[in-house]
Amino acid sequence: MSKPENLSDNIVWHATTIARRDRESRLGQRGTVVWLTGLSGCGKSTIANELEALLYRRGVATILLDGDNVRHGLCAPAQTLAQRHDQAFADRFGLGFGQQDREENIRRIAAVGELFVSSGMIAITAFVSPYRADRQLARMQIESAGSEGDFVEVYVDTPLEVCERRDPKGLYKKARAGEIKNFTGISDPYEPPSSPEIHLNGGDERTVAEQAGQIIAYLEASGRLRAS
Amino acid sequence: MSKPENLSDNIVWHATTIARRDRESRLGQRGTVVWLTGLSGCGKSTIANELEALLYRRGVATILLDGDNVRHGLCAPAQTLAQRHDQAFADRFGLGFGQQDREENIRRIAAVGELFVSSGMIAITAFVSPYRADRQLARMQIESAGSEGDFVEVYVDTPLEVCERRDPKGLYKKARAGEIKNFTGISDPYEPPSSPEIHLNGGDERTVAEQAGQIIAYLEASGRLRAS
Repeated sequence: MSKPENLSDNIVWHATTIARRDRESRLGQRGTVVWLTGLSGCGKSTIANELEALLYRRGVATILLDGDNVRHGLCAPAQTLAQRHDQAFADRFGLGFGQQDREENIRRIAAVGELFVSSGMIAITAFVSPYRADRQLARMQIESAGSEGDFVEVYVDTPLEVCERRDPKGLYKKARAGEIKNFTGISDPYEPPSSPEIHLNGGDERTVAEQAGQIIAYLEASGRLRAS
Repeated sequence: MSKPENLSDNIVWHATTIARRDRESRLGQRGTVVWLTGLSGCGKSTIANELEALLYRRGVATILLDGDNVRHGLCAPAQTLAQRHDQAFADRFGLGFGQQDREENIRRIAAVGELFVSSGMIAITAFVSPYRADRQLARMQIESAGSEGDFVEVYVDTPLEVCERRDPKGLYKKARAGEIKNFTGISDPYEPPSSPEIHLNGGDERTVAEQAGQIIAYLEASGRLRAS
């Protein structure tokens, strides 16, 4: 589609399929998934929120995907699905914390990320996403529909002992007590990214603004965001 | 968040969670799902594309969700999933055309619609979505996270014989020959909406622009879109 604003009203408008580049040019930005990964309590959500606030100030259209908005809908557990669907349905499609469930969780988020990229938005995701293979699939899914660079992996590298000391949701305590099975860092492995686009030292909470700024700087340097 | 542009650079910026209303005010529009429903060949995709083109001309940020962009990702069948995952995984999460599968298909699309609403976008969906109960669940899912009016149901009411005569993908022919099971309108029921927000007579292809215009007029009248 080129220059639709130049069309006279007397000309019959023939619908063309609006493509990603049209949506991007409308928004003045490039569709991107900024994928934060790291242990529970590492600071992913805090950095994601700060990043979204900084982008908002610059007029960038964004969405933040995290447990808060996907766990009651897109990636709901069986008990949530059972409230509106039958039990067999809930058992088949509800997501728990087993290996297959985590894989599907990441797959659905990646698929949604792909749709947001196609809409021209910058989608920020904040999930533990502990397995290298799953993140690699997310990258493939998102980049295969567009181009290399649409997926920006951000490793929030905070030592386990710092995360456990923070323990904002009391989950480490429960995991240590054996009340939570399959807890990343305690009873399940975390596989650090081998070559993330951005590697953040997440140890110090006072540096959140600086860390979000590092992500912005990367997006500018890679031409995904205009310098402000 | 109020007037972030007035902040001086000397003031430390404390991240606030960006909310739906912030994203909407940034985009100057209201997050909405325009949900087209109707038989295969009824004109859903044509109207959806025309609607997106009209909205694009007005500077509205949109996404179109249809079989083309969800069937290889978010709602992929088992054979697609098996290319990147193991067979047990593909069998569990892949979607076919059985009743449970269709229900999950619509549920995932509704969940994504909800995320787009939260991003401030206007999401246009074009799926047969033949069951009243599934569309009702989609409405509940989308409106429960926001407010009434976020879900706009558009019934593209084209007689079966017209759809079958068009048969753009040759699907009716295959369904009549028994090559496709569970085909809506032939071997599976279509349950028309009882009170859609918009009821379009989809019988005549020459009226596509007018039909998309009816949707625009509804969005304006209901305060979801500024009059141009």
